[in-house]
Amino acid sequence: MHGYTANKDDYLKRLRRIEGQTRGLQKMIDEDKYCIDVLTQVSAVTKALQSVALGLLEEHMAGCMVDAAKAGGTEADAKVREAADAIARLVRS
Amino acid sequence: MHGYTANKDDYLKRLRRIEGQTRGLQKMIDEDKYCIDVLTQVSAVTKALQSVALGLLEEHMAGCMVDAAKAGGTEADAKVREAADAIARLVRS
Amino acid sequence: MHGYTANKDDYLKRLRRIEGQTRGLQKMIDEDKYCIDVLTQVSAVTKALQSVALGLLEEHMAGCMVDAAKAGGTEADAKVREAADAIARLVRS
Amino acid sequence: MHGYTANKDDYLKRLRRIEGQTRGLQKMIDEDKYCIDVLTQVSAVTKALQSVALGLLEEHMAGCMVDAAKAGGTEADAKVREAADAIARLVRS
Repeated sequence: MHGYTANKDDYLKRLRRIEGQTRGLQKMIDEDKYCIDVLTQVSAVTKALQSVALGLLEEHMAGCMVDAAKAGGTEADAKVREAADAIARLVRS
Repeated sequence: MHGYTANKDDYLKRLRRIEGQTRGLQKMIDEDKYCIDVLTQVSAVTKALQSVALGLLEEHMAGCMVDAAKAGGTEADAKVREAADAIARLVRS
Repeated sequence: MHGYTANKDDYLKRLRRIEGQTRGLQKMIDEDKYCIDVLTQVSAVTKALQSVALGLLEEHMAGCMVDAAKAGGTEADAKVREAADAIARLVRS
Repeated sequence: MHGYTANKDDYLKRLRRIEGQTRGLQKMIDEDKYCIDVLTQVSAVTKALQSVALGLLEEHMAGCMVDAAKAGGTEADAKVREAADAIARLVRS
C-alpha cells in the first residue's frame, strides 16, 4: 500500500497513453516528419510524464510522509530527505 | 529529408527504449512499488526524452536552419522563430 | 519561525551572491559580451536559484509539514496540497 | 555587435528588475516570511531569468548563427554546436 494505490488505475491509464505517444513519436521519425513537429510532441510527452511525477509525489507526501511524521521518531526525517532528493531530480530533469 | 534523417535508426532505438521504460513504469505501479523508486524511474525517462529532443534540435539547426540561412530571404527568420518557440516549450516542460 | 530560520544567514549569503551575479549579467550585456557567454552565466544563476528553492522546500517539509502532520487534523492535507503546488511551479519554471 | 545589441536597453531593464526581485527575496527571508511565499517568488525570478535566456538565444540564432551560415565554411557548424550546448544547459537548469 502506497500513497498512489487508490489511484492506481488512473496512473496506469496515463502511462499507457504515454507509451502510445512514444510509439507515435517512433512513427513520426520513421515517416520523416518535420523536426519541429516531432519536438512539439516530445514536449507534450515530457509534460505528461512530469504531471504523473507531480501526482505521485503529492500522494507520497500525503501518505508515506505524513504517516511517518505521525509515527514520530527519525523515520520522518529520512522520508523528507528522500523526497527532497526526488524533487531535485525532477526539477533538474 | 530532415536534419535527423541520417541518425533515424539511432532515434528509433532510443525511442523504443523509452517505450520499454514506460511499460516498466506501468509494471512498477501495478506491483505497488515504492513511490520514490517510481519517481526515480520517471525522472530517468524524462531525461532520456529531453536528450532525444536536444539531439533533434541540434540536427534541425545544423540542417533546416542553416540551409534556410544560406538560401537567404525571409525563410531563415521564420525558421529561427519556430525553433525559438520549440526551445521555449522544451525549457518549460 | 519557519523551517529555514536556522539557516537564514546561509540563504541570505546565497541570495546576495545571486544578486551580485545578476549585476554581473547587466555588466556583460552592457559591454556587449558574446551571447553564448551571457547564456552560460544566466544558466548558472538559474541553477543557484533552483538550489535555494530546493533547500527552502526541504526545510519546509521537515519543519512546517511534519509539524502539521504531528498535530493531526486536516492542516497536514492543506500543507501537502500547498507544497505540491509549489513543487509544480518549480518543475515548470 | 551581437544579436541582442539592438535590444540592450530592454535586457538591462529586465535584469535590473530581476536584481530588485533577488533583493526582495533577501528581505522576505530576513523578515521570516512564510516558506511557500518565498518559493513562489523564487519561481517567478527563475521564470524571468529563463525568459531573458530564451530572448538572448533567439537573437543569437537570428544574428550570429544565420550570419555564420550565410558566410559558409565550417563556422556555422561550430555555432550550432555551441548553441546546442547552451540550450542543453538551459533545459537542465
